[in-house]
Amino acid sequence: MNAILLTPEDFVAEQRVHLTDRRLAHVLEVHRAAVGERLRVGLVGGKLGTGTVTALDKSALEMEVTLDTDPPTPAPLTLIVALPRPKSMRKVLHVATTLGIKQIHLINAHRVDKSYWKSPRLKPEAVKEVLTLGLEQSVDTILPGVSFHRRIRWFIEDDLPALCAGKRCLIAHPGASEPCPRALDRPCALAIGPEGGFQDYEVGYFVKAGFTAVTMGPRILRVEEAVAALAGRIL
Amino acid sequence: MNAILLTPEDFVAEQRVHLTDRRLAHVLEVHRAAVGERLRVGLVGGKLGTGTVTALDKSALEMEVTLDTDPPTPAPLTLIVALPRPKSMRKVLHVATTLGIKQIHLINAHRVDKSYWKSPRLKPEAVKEVLTLGLEQSVDTILPGVSFHRRIRWFIEDDLPALCAGKRCLIAHPGASEPCPRALDRPCALAIGPEGGFQDYEVGYFVKAGFTAVTMGPRILRVEEAVAALAGRIL
Repeated sequence: MNAILLTPEDFVAEQRVHLTDRRLAHVLEVHRAAVGERLRVGLVGGKLGTGTVTALDKSALEMEVTLDTDPPTPAPLTLIVALPRPKSMRKVLHVATTLGIKQIHLINAHRVDKSYWKSPRLKPEAVKEVLTLGLEQSVDTILPGVSFHRRIRWFIEDDLPALCAGKRCLIAHPGASEPCPRALDRPCALAIGPEGGFQDYEVGYFVKAGFTAVTMGPRILRVEEAVAALAGRIL
Repeated sequence: MNAILLTPEDFVAEQRVHLTDRRLAHVLEVHRAAVGERLRVGLVGGKLGTGTVTALDKSALEMEVTLDTDPPTPAPLTLIVALPRPKSMRKVLHVATTLGIKQIHLINAHRVDKSYWKSPRLKPEAVKEVLTLGLEQSVDTILPGVSFHRRIRWFIEDDLPALCAGKRCLIAHPGASEPCPRALDRPCALAIGPEGGFQDYEVGYFVKAGFTAVTMGPRILRVEEAVAALAGRIL
């Protein structure tokens, strides 16, 4: 936790917050802060700043908060990922959030196991929890938008055109011959397949929608590793 | 497991292997292979190829093996990482291996917790296990060399000069103003600090040794995420 993320409900006065949850536990156990110390804070959806500890014991943390800095610029990258196994999905959401990606679409594909769609980790509160951890890690305040699409055809036909407008659109595909481009000068939409890759007909959907199939080389990465490596290259 | 990694001990005849361990379990449970099916295999330190299943039951997997393909080219990147907490170290080793990095140095730093050095995860067999998983994921056969350096001064003075010769040397540092370069045309040595970063005097050691401090932007990544994003950018 490199920043403590605050919500409007934490405020007991205009500039004073009162925390009793895991953030208190973290400050007690990891920061081991004392009264008078200054911690990095941010308001969800708002500015970053500092919180000066005014009271701290096992029951509560109080801080005087100044919010004066804009969060970092969002990464101009829209991520489309075939829903990975739930544990891996959490890692994808975390790394995408820490990289500053603000639009994440999790879609179905032939090789996505149906059981993944029933995981409790897809519930809004579970998703929000991991996104929050990612913002706290990276010192950012803007929650990514995450949406789930159980019908790949509907996603491609109904959502993709608007989502891709004005963007360079890439689909990572192990079989592709074109290397993934670098340092794009305009926003990008990036699609990444499931373990074992998209089926050829699924790649065909994306290509028809204007995507270029690209590769990071012959090695097969875990999806969360691929997200980080591709984003590092593209951004 | 995108490839089954073989060792010379697995061979019961010149082209025949007999497996009874976790690789058997994986083929039974995940591949659900049948006799006659062909699986991707590789010989540790040697070539990649295919194994045709000749016998399979709960007690053993036998394959006729043809090894005819060179493993992918190693990534021209030497990684130097301040020893992270053991769980994170495993992730760093895994992602570095899947990215094709073949030289990994784990070093001490002021902010490395002393307890990390006592973890059983630093033992050679534990390290080899995670490297093997990385090779099986990425379809490669060349185990990275991993070395541990408990004295950062000794590492910098004794090991770094030879290790850096002819390389572009970068140290990832959140405070740096120079952006991390892309697509280097020569081998690179990349140093990444601990949670909370290297101390200024530690960065100074590296700078004196010819390293340039570079940044990936204002966001703070987990070390395993930073490895992947930086490697994606540099390679």
